[in-house]
Amino acid sequence: MSIQFRVERTDGAARAGRLLTPHGPVETPVFMPVGTQATIKGLTPEQVRTLGASLILANTYHLALRPGDALIRDLGGLHRFMHWDGPILTDSGGFQVFSLATLVHISDVGATFRSHIDGAILELTPERAVEIQENLGSDIAMVLDECPPADANREQLQQAVRRTIAWAERCQKRHQSREQALFAIVQGGLDQELRRQCAEALVAMDFPGYALGGFSVGETAAQMQAALPECASLLPHDKPRYLMGVGRPEDLLAGIAAGIDMFDCVLPTRNGRNAQAFTSTGVLRLRNACHRRDPAPLDSACNCYCCQHFSRAYLHHLFAAEEMLGPILLSLHNLAFYLRLMRQAREAIFGGTFAAFHARCLRQWGHSHDPKP
Amino acid sequence: MSIQFRVERTDGAARAGRLLTPHGPVETPVFMPVGTQATIKGLTPEQVRTLGASLILANTYHLALRPGDALIRDLGGLHRFMHWDGPILTDSGGFQVFSLATLVHISDVGATFRSHIDGAILELTPERAVEIQENLGSDIAMVLDECPPADANREQLQQAVRRTIAWAERCQKRHQSREQALFAIVQGGLDQELRRQCAEALVAMDFPGYALGGFSVGETAAQMQAALPECASLLPHDKPRYLMGVGRPEDLLAGIAAGIDMFDCVLPTRNGRNAQAFTSTGVLRLRNACHRRDPAPLDSACNCYCCQHFSRAYLHHLFAAEEMLGPILLSLHNLAFYLRLMRQAREAIFGGTFAAFHARCLRQWGHSHDPKP
Ligand SMILES: [Zn+2]
Ligand SMILES: [Zn+2]
Repeated sequence: MSIQFRVERTDGAARAGRLLTPHGPVETPVFMPVGTQATIKGLTPEQVRTLGASLILANTYHLALRPGDALIRDLGGLHRFMHWDGPILTDSGGFQVFSLATLVHISDVGATFRSHIDGAILELTPERAVEIQENLGSDIAMVLDECPPADANREQLQQAVRRTIAWAERCQKRHQSREQALFAIVQGGLDQELRRQCAEALVAMDFPGYALGGFSVGETAAQMQAALPECASLLPHDKPRYLMGVGRPEDLLAGIAAGIDMFDCVLPTRNGRNAQAFTSTGVLRLRNACHRRDPAPLDSACNCYCCQHFSRAYLHHLFAAEEMLGPILLSLHNLAFYLRLMRQAREAIFGGTFAAFHARCLRQWGHSHDPKP
Repeated sequence: MSIQFRVERTDGAARAGRLLTPHGPVETPVFMPVGTQATIKGLTPEQVRTLGASLILANTYHLALRPGDALIRDLGGLHRFMHWDGPILTDSGGFQVFSLATLVHISDVGATFRSHIDGAILELTPERAVEIQENLGSDIAMVLDECPPADANREQLQQAVRRTIAWAERCQKRHQSREQALFAIVQGGLDQELRRQCAEALVAMDFPGYALGGFSVGETAAQMQAALPECASLLPHDKPRYLMGVGRPEDLLAGIAAGIDMFDCVLPTRNGRNAQAFTSTGVLRLRNACHRRDPAPLDSACNCYCCQHFSRAYLHHLFAAEEMLGPILLSLHNLAFYLRLMRQAREAIFGGTFAAFHARCLRQWGHSHDPKP
C-alpha cells in the first residue's frame, strides 16, 4: 500500500489525522506549498523544510512541458531532481490545460491544447496524465478531471462530471506504481446533486484519497464555503480529503471546519512576491508608505526568520528598491503563517476547541484578508 | 582606534593579514560581497555568513538616495537595518555619481548630480560623503574621490588627483566617528607618476588604510594587472590595501600577487543572476543546451549548498523556467567560489607557495573566465 491514513481525532466535522507516505509522515490538516516548476518560488528546499512543510505540490502540466517528465525520470525522479526528500503530490495537469493553455479540442478521449511556452500542439489523456506522474515519481498522483468554469450551465457541469468519472476509471486502470497513491477528484460545481452523483461513482471505485475540484474557479468565497460541508460529507471518513487550489487563510479554516484534510494554494508565495503579508492582524501591504520608518517586525506574533530579524522599514525598502530579498522574505513569512495556522488548527482539534479557535482567528484578522483571488 | 591591521606573513609581494574591526576580525586577503542596496542580491544574511563572508560592502550613493542615511541612522544604523552583525565597508558614493547618475556639475566644492531614481538634483561633497557614512555606521568608510574614465587625458587625470587629495583632506577633517576607520583612495589612472604623487600626499596624511581607485573603468585587464605591483608598492606596508571594484578571479590573484589585501566586485552575484558560474575549470553558462540532461553538479570541486544538492540539469531548468532559485543558487555558488579562492590564497601565502598556487589556478581555469567586464 502506497499510503496509509488514519483520523486521529475529530472535533465537530473537523479532523486531525496522519498520512503515511513513501517519503515520510504528514500530519493533517496540512497545507502544501506549491512548487509549480519543481521549486517553491524564491526559496531553497532547506528553507521550506525549516518552515515545517511536510508535503509539497508540483505541477504535472508545467513539468511535462519543461523540462519533460521523461527527462526527470531519467535523472532519478522529481524528488532527486528538485532535492526534496519529503512527500510530493502532483496534480493531473487538467486544471492548467483548462486555464493556462489554449484549449484546441476536448473530447471523451482527452484534451488537445496549445502549449503556453512554445505553442506546440499536445494531447493530455487520462493515460498520459498517469504516465507523466509515474515518471515524476510523486507520492500522490491525481486523476485527470474536467474542470468547468464557475459560470458553466448544468449541461456543461453534467458532461464534466460524466467525463471526470470515465477518466478516473481509465486513470485507475492505467496506474501501476505501487509507490504512488492515485487520488480521485469530485467535480459538479455548486450543484450538490451532481457533486453527490460524482462522489458516489468515484467512492465506489475505492480510491485511496479524494479531492474536491472545481472550487476557487470564479464563484464567491461565500458560495464555496457554504458548499463545502455537504461536499466533504460525501467523501469516505477514513480517507484523506483534499480541497484543490484553495485559498485564503479563512477559506482553509472553513475547509477544516467542513472536514477537509489537505490544501494547496499559490497565495502565500504569489502575494509575498507582491509585497502582501498575511499576519495575525490581517493583511499588510509592505509597499505602503506608512511602513517606511516602522522599526516593528512584520508580525510580532510570528517567529519566522523574517519576523525575527527584519523591520517593516527594511522590507518596505527592499520592495521599493526591487531587491529579490523582499519577495524571498515575504514568501518565507507567508508560508510560515500558513503552516503555523495548520499546526494550530490541529492542536485545537485535539483540544476540542476548533470552533473557538476558528472564531478567534477571524476576529483577530478583522475579516481583512484579501478579497477572494 | 577603530581598526587594527597586522601583516601576518608575506610570500613575495603577497600578504596574509588580520584586520580587527568593531564588528569582528577579517582575515586577508579578503573578498567583500557587494550589498549595494543593503542586501547581497538574492541571499539572506545567514546564507552569506554561512558561505564564510566576514566583511561586506554597501553603497553610500544608493542608500543615501533610498531609503536615506538619516532614516537608517534613526533605525539604529546599517548593521541593524540589514541584519548583518559582521563588519561593513561603505564606499564614498563618488564612483556611482560618476557612472550611474547624470553629472550636472563638478567643481572643487563637490559633485552636483541628478538622481537616477527620481531625477532630483543633489550634491555630494566630501563633507556630505563622510556624514552619510557616519549615519550608516559602517566599520570602514571611504573618502570622496574623483574617478576619471580610462580615456581621460593627462590634464584630466592631474585634476582628478589634485581634487582627490584635497577632498581626502576635507573628509579627514570632517570625520569624527571613533568606531569607523576612514580609508583614502589613490587615483592617477595608468600614469605611475601621478599615482606616486597621489599616494605620497595621502600617505603623509596618515590614513588607517588605502585603496586603489580608478581601475576596472575601461582599461584592459593586462594594463591593470601590469600597473598593480608598482601602485601597491606605493602604499604603506603596515596598512590594509584595497583594490576597488575588481574583478574576475584572475584579477584578484594578480592583485594578491601585487600585495593587495581587500577586494570587492559585483561579478559573482551579477553573473550568477545571468546563469554564469565560476568553477574550478572555468566559466560555465547554465543556459547552454549541453547542460539540459547533465546530472553532474555545477563544480565537483565545490562543497557549497548548490553543488552538494543540485544537478546542472536542474539549474538549466531553473533558468529556462525563469525561476528565482536559479539566480539564488548561482549567486551562492559564485560567492562560495570567490570566498574559497581567498582562503586558499591565504593558505598558500602561509605555506610560501602562492606563486605556484596562482599558476595552478590559471592553468585549471584554462584562461577561460569571462573577458574583463
Ligand atoms: Zn514571520
Ligand atoms: Zn558550488
